[in-house]
Amino acid sequence: MKLYDYFRSSAAYRVRIAIELKSLDVERIPVHLARGEHRLPEYLAKNPQGLAPALELDDGTIIIQSLAIIDYLDALAPRPLLTPKDPLLAAKARGVALAIACDIHPLNNRRVLDYLREKLGQDESGVDAWIHHWALKGGLEAVERLIEPGPFCFGAQPTIADVCLVPQLFAARRFATPLDALPKLLAVEAHCLAQPAFAAAEPSRQADAE
Amino acid sequence: MKLYDYFRSSAAYRVRIAIELKSLDVERIPVHLARGEHRLPEYLAKNPQGLAPALELDDGTIIIQSLAIIDYLDALAPRPLLTPKDPLLAAKARGVALAIACDIHPLNNRRVLDYLREKLGQDESGVDAWIHHWALKGGLEAVERLIEPGPFCFGAQPTIADVCLVPQLFAARRFATPLDALPKLLAVEAHCLAQPAFAAAEPSRQADAE
Repeated sequence: MKLYDYFRSSAAYRVRIAIELKSLDVERIPVHLARGEHRLPEYLAKNPQGLAPALELDDGTIIIQSLAIIDYLDALAPRPLLTPKDPLLAAKARGVALAIACDIHPLNNRRVLDYLREKLGQDESGVDAWIHHWALKGGLEAVERLIEPGPFCFGAQPTIADVCLVPQLFAARRFATPLDALPKLLAVEAHCLAQPAFAAAEPSRQADAE
Repeated sequence: MKLYDYFRSSAAYRVRIAIELKSLDVERIPVHLARGEHRLPEYLAKNPQGLAPALELDDGTIIIQSLAIIDYLDALAPRPLLTPKDPLLAAKARGVALAIACDIHPLNNRRVLDYLREKLGQDESGVDAWIHHWALKGGLEAVERLIEPGPFCFGAQPTIADVCLVPQLFAARRFATPLDALPKLLAVEAHCLAQPAFAAAEPSRQADAE
């Protein structure tokens, strides 16, 4: 399998954590978003959304969307299972994962920030205010109230919630989002990053890191 | 079970379709987003994100995020199963569902449009340009290329992809988004809306519709 990856993409970072937790052998192919490689026809032929990540199976089939890729990897290599078998625990973990993946990340990713700058004429202070607003309000502040640390987001095993939380906190710090009011999230993050699989997936440790 | 619902929310509309397809008995409790009922302390105590929908189980447990709710309902009442058992078909259906739920809907929902108007001073033409851009680019135009109609998005049975597509097309029309270049999506939508379960979930048929 091949992962179309970008070191700084928090959606790609999620998939890298899952790959490392499951000790899967996946080739990484960098798609340099800042240089527009995701808009090249060769890449759009693979992923019409023009976003990273995408997973290419050995027969050429493409799976898009980080959470769909991670669910596929859960079926392929269930140890560890990132969406728990218990339906209620699964719902709680998915609820947090989706709160991050739907209601924080897409509002603060590169294509949206470019639109704010280029089409709405926002300067960096306007862009920063936007980033911090969506990261916190109804976002990480809500996640702080939803998790039940033990010491991962939901108990003693990592789930899809942790896999989404750690990259989103990385992105929040990149944009200097104030995180002091989120002690439970910071404790979960510290616990996660002490695990070799989470650490190996960090953006700074990728071959395409700048 | 109770569903905290809002007739015009496309995320709530997804859950209503799932409930109707599975013939579940779920009480609907309207949360009037336009009147700010989602920001009242009683509702925030249930869903810290302050978004609709949320599902309340009979013991008071709350499940948030439409796709987490639908996965929970799939476990509770697997007929019909909205995420197929086959891992590859599941990945394709989830890929389309998440392309809509992550990369279109959150950019165009009420709270974001309010921010554009109130904090970025956008007039209605600026807001419309934003809505149409995110609905189409990397959004519905990509989904048009990803689905494999048969006559639902992926074969002869409805999946999570159809459950997300139909409400997003409803939202697109509400904002007069041009859909002429999306013939596959329009054909799937027409097929879905001819099914009683999809039709019963339509916003105009809800008790809180205006």
